[in-house]
Amino acid sequence: MNSTNETHDLSLRSWIESANVRNADFPIQNLPFGRYRPIGAIEDFKIGVAIGDQILDLQETGLIDTSDMNVLMSLDAQARLRLRSAISQGLAHGSPEQHAWSKLLSPQCKAEMALPCRIGDYTDFYTGIHHATSVGRLFRPDQPLMPNYKWVPIGYHGRASSIRVSGHTFRRPHGQTKAPDAEQPGVGPCRRLDYELELGYFVGRGNELGQPVPIEVAEDHLFGVTLLNDWSARDIQAWEYQPLGPFLSKNFVTTVSPWLVTMEALAPFRAPLSRPEGDPQPLPYLDSEFNRKSGLLDITLEVRILTQRMAKDGLAPERVTLGSARTAAYWTAAQLIAHHTVNGCNLQSGDLLGSGTLSGPAANEAGSLLELTEGGKKCVTLTNGEQRTFLEDGDTLVLRGWCERPGAAHIGLGEVRGTVMA
Amino acid sequence: MNSTNETHDLSLRSWIESANVRNADFPIQNLPFGRYRPIGAIEDFKIGVAIGDQILDLQETGLIDTSDMNVLMSLDAQARLRLRSAISQGLAHGSPEQHAWSKLLSPQCKAEMALPCRIGDYTDFYTGIHHATSVGRLFRPDQPLMPNYKWVPIGYHGRASSIRVSGHTFRRPHGQTKAPDAEQPGVGPCRRLDYELELGYFVGRGNELGQPVPIEVAEDHLFGVTLLNDWSARDIQAWEYQPLGPFLSKNFVTTVSPWLVTMEALAPFRAPLSRPEGDPQPLPYLDSEFNRKSGLLDITLEVRILTQRMAKDGLAPERVTLGSARTAAYWTAAQLIAHHTVNGCNLQSGDLLGSGTLSGPAANEAGSLLELTEGGKKCVTLTNGEQRTFLEDGDTLVLRGWCERPGAAHIGLGEVRGTVMA
Repeated sequence: MNSTNETHDLSLRSWIESANVRNADFPIQNLPFGRYRPIGAIEDFKIGVAIGDQILDLQETGLIDTSDMNVLMSLDAQARLRLRSAISQGLAHGSPEQHAWSKLLSPQCKAEMALPCRIGDYTDFYTGIHHATSVGRLFRPDQPLMPNYKWVPIGYHGRASSIRVSGHTFRRPHGQTKAPDAEQPGVGPCRRLDYELELGYFVGRGNELGQPVPIEVAEDHLFGVTLLNDWSARDIQAWEYQPLGPFLSKNFVTTVSPWLVTMEALAPFRAPLSRPEGDPQPLPYLDSEFNRKSGLLDITLEVRILTQRMAKDGLAPERVTLGSARTAAYWTAAQLIAHHTVNGCNLQSGDLLGSGTLSGPAANEAGSLLELTEGGKKCVTLTNGEQRTFLEDGDTLVLRGWCERPGAAHIGLGEVRGTVMA
Repeated sequence: MNSTNETHDLSLRSWIESANVRNADFPIQNLPFGRYRPIGAIEDFKIGVAIGDQILDLQETGLIDTSDMNVLMSLDAQARLRLRSAISQGLAHGSPEQHAWSKLLSPQCKAEMALPCRIGDYTDFYTGIHHATSVGRLFRPDQPLMPNYKWVPIGYHGRASSIRVSGHTFRRPHGQTKAPDAEQPGVGPCRRLDYELELGYFVGRGNELGQPVPIEVAEDHLFGVTLLNDWSARDIQAWEYQPLGPFLSKNFVTTVSPWLVTMEALAPFRAPLSRPEGDPQPLPYLDSEFNRKSGLLDITLEVRILTQRMAKDGLAPERVTLGSARTAAYWTAAQLIAHHTVNGCNLQSGDLLGSGTLSGPAANEAGSLLELTEGGKKCVTLTNGEQRTFLEDGDTLVLRGWCERPGAAHIGLGEVRGTVMA
């Protein structure tokens, strides 16, 4: 794994100067994959690698022989490392490729991004224990955390067709709701529209139907990570969710960031999974030495809001949450893959696993308005005096994520941005 | 719509004699679509039409210019009627096409069938009110039917990747379960494996994200119907399903019959939707005159079981359930489409909507062992003396469906067959 370590070297610099700027999301140590084309073009999307403020046309480098991201994602671990190493060497300061590759760059600001791959199936998990507890308290005050929570990585199937890439604007969903004191339900626009701060784990190599993936090799099936906003209509959810779970309250749209930040890029930011004293240890199929030592990802997560008035006044999006995936998640990505397949269910290249809302233990680390406002009982007050219990028309949400630690380069996940309209 | 009526004419006969046999599943009035190739071949699957015991190679007739069933399914209603009419005329007794088309036939017994189309997303509903009540009673004796049931067509997202066509054999799934009296859960083979008798509604034309489908035109988006077996691991389900619904208890495999029986073929078998006295009327977005008068499908449904011992002894599958979709379903397919899209969720050509278990009001009309055995408390005794509470290794389930009424041809859905192995 020398090649991995070399590609992380803090002293590594690129001949693309914007990649060497301090705290840039996409330094040469990152090298995430995405699909892009020039804004306004109708040509097919191409596979690119983000570097600084540019995108490298990966196919034109000759390093891959496919234009299909799902095929690239299904490479085995060694082939992925070789590809990463070759890209890193080509982009490194002093590379003999500089002359040729400099013609393969496009500025990110002039690119339209697509979903990073075809998403066959989307599963949303519920790994954020602080979120599960806070939300559970609102729906079931007598039993916030179900008895199965610390044993089963709870998850449910989501809707793949309505997943969109960052930048999406959508209409406030309509649906059936019933106020607790109303005699019967009605239909109309959602009045408790919310966001959820999540990570999206993308499957690389799949498994055959009937062939579980042991936890020891689960991460071989994981390609990379994006940010994910699981937009949620709380009033629709409260009325529809029993007994089969959330449905129309979630499937009107889900947004993800465009860049697949690979597990290789995130290797320096692994963290141990430590369960609180007294909690049960994971069952054997959810337990491994690697998982205990390094199962979690230490990613800082942030939510910002930009109201229509703020945008008119030229203000920047304002932070409402700053937290960490490490302190929020009770289950690791490897555990999700081992659990998802223990019954023989087949994952396919490009499938998306949502982490569930990653709220930290502190109040200002909550990853949804439902939590920040305690179910709509309190207001979030912005610097310009505007208040929110739930989202209003014209609101834009910006979710960002990044990794930092002494001795390692800053690795950014970019952002996922979305706007609700009337 | 004259062309539709002509294609249903009881006196219509085919030059393929097996199509004229009394109570054949696939007379000339049916004409379902499927994907097939010769057994053992590695060539691509082709689009065919079932007629008697044969399959007509549809592409070779020149009536379609695609080999992609999802494209065929997205034809508009008029184009679909024209296609049906042309196939009917070509297969009718005395057709000038007989000579040419007789070379385009393959026997069904020599064909391997595929899933009828690419299924992007799979949603499973819960329209069987007798099933919901019986199962609800087992899980929640105090409140069998949730307060939302008669207002909301309850549904949840299922797993698309593990849907297989009839004939599939699968291993008994493993998973996490917890006996009510156990201190903690364990992992092992499912001990309460069950089937669920459902219809599969396949989407034809899709809708754009953000554009709900009004109920008045909902059936324009429906292409046809198959049988569906929603195999269920009850012990896994009981432990995992709260609060987000069924997950691993369902997604190890779902099987469907290979022939898409079109809404046009089912036109003579429509039935009114009548709600019991005192039940609420559907909200306006779930109500239309057509839906009230003809929203339901009058399809007879049957479950048969063939144990390993029965197969060894040369016995035929034995009927355990005979019921009807009409008396089982509280919600119509049009209501499912209107509800699914009311929030703007987009359906795509080939998407699958499961009806939920279609158990009738009588005990011997129950569409699952969970109901037939009252949660495993009673046994189903077969003629050869074997008993079942849940499925045992080597059991084969055969679900069949057909339509009959005076003055109309018998229309069969064929069968979906599946076998569980150790």
